[in-house]
Amino acid sequence: MTLSAAEVNRLKQAPAVEGVLPLFHDRWSPRALDSRAISTADLTRIFEAARWTASSSNEQPWRFLLGIRGTETHDNIFSSLVGFNKAWAGSAPVLILGIAAAKASSGRPNTYALYDLGAATSVLTLQAAALGIRSHQMGGFDHAIARQALTIPEEDYALGAVIALGYQAEPSTLGNEQLREREVAPRDRKPLKEIVLSALGTPADLG
Amino acid sequence: MTLSAAEVNRLKQAPAVEGVLPLFHDRWSPRALDSRAISTADLTRIFEAARWTASSSNEQPWRFLLGIRGTETHDNIFSSLVGFNKAWAGSAPVLILGIAAAKASSGRPNTYALYDLGAATSVLTLQAAALGIRSHQMGGFDHAIARQALTIPEEDYALGAVIALGYQAEPSTLGNEQLREREVAPRDRKPLKEIVLSALGTPADLG
Repeated sequence: MTLSAAEVNRLKQAPAVEGVLPLFHDRWSPRALDSRAISTADLTRIFEAARWTASSSNEQPWRFLLGIRGTETHDNIFSSLVGFNKAWAGSAPVLILGIAAAKASSGRPNTYALYDLGAATSVLTLQAAALGIRSHQMGGFDHAIARQALTIPEEDYALGAVIALGYQAEPSTLGNEQLREREVAPRDRKPLKEIVLSALGTPADLG
Repeated sequence: MTLSAAEVNRLKQAPAVEGVLPLFHDRWSPRALDSRAISTADLTRIFEAARWTASSSNEQPWRFLLGIRGTETHDNIFSSLVGFNKAWAGSAPVLILGIAAAKASSGRPNTYALYDLGAATSVLTLQAAALGIRSHQMGGFDHAIARQALTIPEEDYALGAVIALGYQAEPSTLGNEQLREREVAPRDRKPLKEIVLSALGTPADLG
């Protein structure tokens, strides 16, 4: 039995908590994306939101290589994906490679480069969700292929994730059984007592 | 002339863009925080939001050492701050140190540990903002002091940022002129053409 996209969205919905913005609970990372294009206006909104993320010393190390399907950038990003991701991400109308300037404006290494890129990318995915656009981040790509195809010098930029953006499609459109199974698996997160601590090994008292 | 907190909030507001959630534009990082406590219910909401952040292979490497003022954890986190941050952050009712599990559940190094911690911390600050609670992240702390005071083994956890949470106070309450000047300085971000690229050095065509 395959669930519909609407059924999966209900399944993936994190339990509502009064006072928590529904946006954080709604966002999840489907792989079934249809080929419908994302408007330039919506892409602009997505990056505009990310632009205002906080960063260490306001360095704003994030850079987003934007691949619209049909362009060389999209082809190059796609070419770097591992097989498991190639099996689904090709349908995404947008593939982005997030990279981070490895040096601060002082010329010294920016030890917060990837931390800040993760933060900005998180905002990007939340603004996308607010527009009804799904996102799926992937660490599963070959760094050497990405660096070569997109001419990204190792000394200048650290590589973050490939981000697929698109509108959600029916799970049944996924090309193999393993992908379909993952698409409809319940979401799972650690309880607060494992992540909010007063000391290592000691949960904080949240009442 | 010193601006009031309300005047500063207007000054710091990023320009509204139709379709972009105001939350992303409202959030900024004041240093003038008053000593009013944050309720346990609100702290729970803040971490509950962060808990649902996406992470590489769903490793959820983030751990938050929560220091409520008056506790040893707060004292220990405060003790690690550099002087510039000690001059303002002591008034914050909550100081958090974000750390990330350095190894994945497989036992191998998690190369996305700090990236994912940055993402979850970003969500934490946005949920705080939605509750009227301000946040200010700091990289300015002594890692060795933090590791020793809080007993954080280097092989197990990478250190992220110290996060001050609190309600905004009047800029005039800051203890020195440099802090007061920074508090009322306009916010500044790179334009989209510098961060959204089709290739390094080439802005993407966003119309």
